[in-house]
Amino acid sequence: MPAKQTLSSLGEFGFLHRLFPRLRTRSDVLVGPGDDCAVVRRSRRNLLITTDALVEGVHFEREWLTPRQLGRRSLLVNLSDIAAMGGGPTHGVISLGVPPRYRLADLVALHDGIAAVARETGSDIVGGNVTRARQAFVSITLLGEVDRPVLRNGARAGDQLFVSGVLGEAALGVRQLRRGKRRGPAITRYREPQPRLQAGALLAQERMASAMIDVSDGLLQDLRHIVESSGVGAVIDVDALPHAPGLKQLRDADALQLALCGGDDYELLFTVPRRKLARLEKLRPKLGCQVTRIGECTKDGRGIRLRGAGRAVRIAGEGGWDHLVGW
Amino acid sequence: MPAKQTLSSLGEFGFLHRLFPRLRTRSDVLVGPGDDCAVVRRSRRNLLITTDALVEGVHFEREWLTPRQLGRRSLLVNLSDIAAMGGGPTHGVISLGVPPRYRLADLVALHDGIAAVARETGSDIVGGNVTRARQAFVSITLLGEVDRPVLRNGARAGDQLFVSGVLGEAALGVRQLRRGKRRGPAITRYREPQPRLQAGALLAQERMASAMIDVSDGLLQDLRHIVESSGVGAVIDVDALPHAPGLKQLRDADALQLALCGGDDYELLFTVPRRKLARLEKLRPKLGCQVTRIGECTKDGRGIRLRGAGRAVRIAGEGGWDHLVGW
Repeated sequence: MPAKQTLSSLGEFGFLHRLFPRLRTRSDVLVGPGDDCAVVRRSRRNLLITTDALVEGVHFEREWLTPRQLGRRSLLVNLSDIAAMGGGPTHGVISLGVPPRYRLADLVALHDGIAAVARETGSDIVGGNVTRARQAFVSITLLGEVDRPVLRNGARAGDQLFVSGVLGEAALGVRQLRRGKRRGPAITRYREPQPRLQAGALLAQERMASAMIDVSDGLLQDLRHIVESSGVGAVIDVDALPHAPGLKQLRDADALQLALCGGDDYELLFTVPRRKLARLEKLRPKLGCQVTRIGECTKDGRGIRLRGAGRAVRIAGEGGWDHLVGW
Repeated sequence: MPAKQTLSSLGEFGFLHRLFPRLRTRSDVLVGPGDDCAVVRRSRRNLLITTDALVEGVHFEREWLTPRQLGRRSLLVNLSDIAAMGGGPTHGVISLGVPPRYRLADLVALHDGIAAVARETGSDIVGGNVTRARQAFVSITLLGEVDRPVLRNGARAGDQLFVSGVLGEAALGVRQLRRGKRRGPAITRYREPQPRLQAGALLAQERMASAMIDVSDGLLQDLRHIVESSGVGAVIDVDALPHAPGLKQLRDADALQLALCGGDDYELLFTVPRRKLARLEKLRPKLGCQVTRIGECTKDGRGIRLRGAGRAVRIAGEGGWDHLVGW
C-alpha cells in the first residue's frame, strides 16, 4: 500500500485484518480478526477484563506522542490494570479513531506500537475496528487471567503500604512536554509506562498483597480508593517516598506535589500484612522492580495523613490531591 | 446529584461505578466495576470477543439519536456480532467519550440505554470509563460464549443463501433522518436494530448454518465477506429479497439499492446446505424472526451475481455495492 495514501480514501474499513497482519502469539485463539467476533478457547482461570481510552486533547496533546508511541502507551496503561489485579494479559481488542490528518503510515505505526507491546507481553490482539474521528482516540479492551485476584478492599489496619518504582517522574515529563521540551528521561517515562506484571503476579501468587491498585491518577487519589474500599485509614511517610532522580532538582513542595498527586506513574501501590514482611524481603529479587515501604494502614476511618519532618497533616476530602491542607 | 450539573465539573471520573449502580444480572461476575479490572468466573464454553464504536458525525448525527437511544443502539449493534457467531452475550465494558454540551442527565440516559439492553439480553456491564471528547463516542467491547461458532468461511457451492427479517429499512430511515424527518417505522428501525440472538444461537446449535455474518454494511458488502472467505461465488434472486414495507413506495431501482447496499440492517445472512433445508423448515417457528431464501452459493470463484426478471448481472469488484454494473 502506498505509504502516503490518505485515510479518507479508505472510508470506513471495519475490521483491522484488512490492513494489518494477524499476530499469532497465542495458541488459544481459535478465530482472530476477520470474523464477527474473535473466538478464544476457555481456560480454567478467572477472566480479567479492563478497558481504557486515550483521547487526543484530553489525555495527551498530539505533539507529545508519535502514532507509534501512542499505540505503545495505550496498551501499556491497560497492562498496568491487569498487573494491579495480579494477573497476566491474554487477549486485546482495539478501537481506533483516526483524525483526517492521519496518513495510512501513521495508522500502521499506531497499530505496530500496540502490536509490539502485545508481543512483548505474550498477549494477542484479536480484533478491533477503525473509524474516522475529529480527535485521535485509542480505546483498548484487554483480557487477562488470574487465579486469585488482588482487590482494593483487602487492606487492614496495620498493613504496611508499599509502592513499586519511583513516583512523580511521568508527571514531571508531562510538565516538560507542556513547556515544549521533547526529550529526556522524564518524558520517556511518561511515554513508556512500565506495567509491573511480574511483581503484580508474584505478589498475588504468594498471597503477599492484601490490597493492590495501580497508581494512574496520583498516589493520594489511588490510595484513597484502597482506603475507602477497605474501610481503613492510612499514613504516608513523606520522607520515604521513592522520588525519581529528576525530582531532586525541584523545590521540596514541588517534588512532593508531583510524587503525591502527579499521576501517570503506573506503579503498583499495595498493602502487606506485617507478619508477611520477612517473606516479602525474600521475594524482592524476583519482583523485577524496586518496592519501597511508604507508610501503613491505620484504623483512622477514612482519613489519609502525611507524616514527616515532625509534621502530620490530614489531607482534605475530595480534591485533596491538589491542595494539601496545612502542608 | 443535580440533574443539570455540567460534566466539566466532574473532570475525569474514571470508572463508571461512581456514577452508575451496578447491574447484577449474572452470578459469574466476581468483581464488577470499581476495581482495576472486572473478574469473571470462567465457563467451559469458548469465549467470543467483539468491539464496535459509534462516533458522532461519523456513524450518526447528534440530532438522530437521543443519548438513551445512542446507548441502546451501541449495545444492540455489538449484540448482532455475537448473534452472527451463534453465541450468547455475557459481559460488556463501555468506553464513553462525552462532548462539552452533555449534561450529567445525558450521560446517565446514555448509560441507562446501554444498561437496559444489557438487562434485556441477560448480559452484564462489568466496567468502563468516561472521558471528555469533542464528539460523542461510545465504544463497547462485548464478550459472549458459544460451543461451536459459525464462521464466515464455511459456505460451499450449492448451499442456499438466507437472510433474516427485511432489508433496506434502516437505510431508508437514515435517508429520512438526513432529510429532517424524526419519526416513523423506518427511523425506529434504524435506531433500534434487532439482533437475531435466538435465530443465531439455534442455527449454530442445530448445525444448520455453514457460514453466517450479520448485515451491517449492506447485503452485497457482507455477502462479499462470506464469498471471499469461503472461496465460492453467489447468485442473488433479487425478486426474492425481503423488502421492508416502506420500500414498496420507492422506485424499483431505488428500493433495490437500499436493500442490497443500504447497511445498518443487522440481520443475519447465512448459508444452509441443501440436505438440511427440510430440517430448517421445522426450525422456522423457533427462530423468532422470518428467514427468507434469497439465492445460493455457486462455484463461480469470487463473483456475486444478481438474477431476476430474466436478467443476470455480475457485480463489479471493490465498490460494486454502489454502482450495479449493467443493472
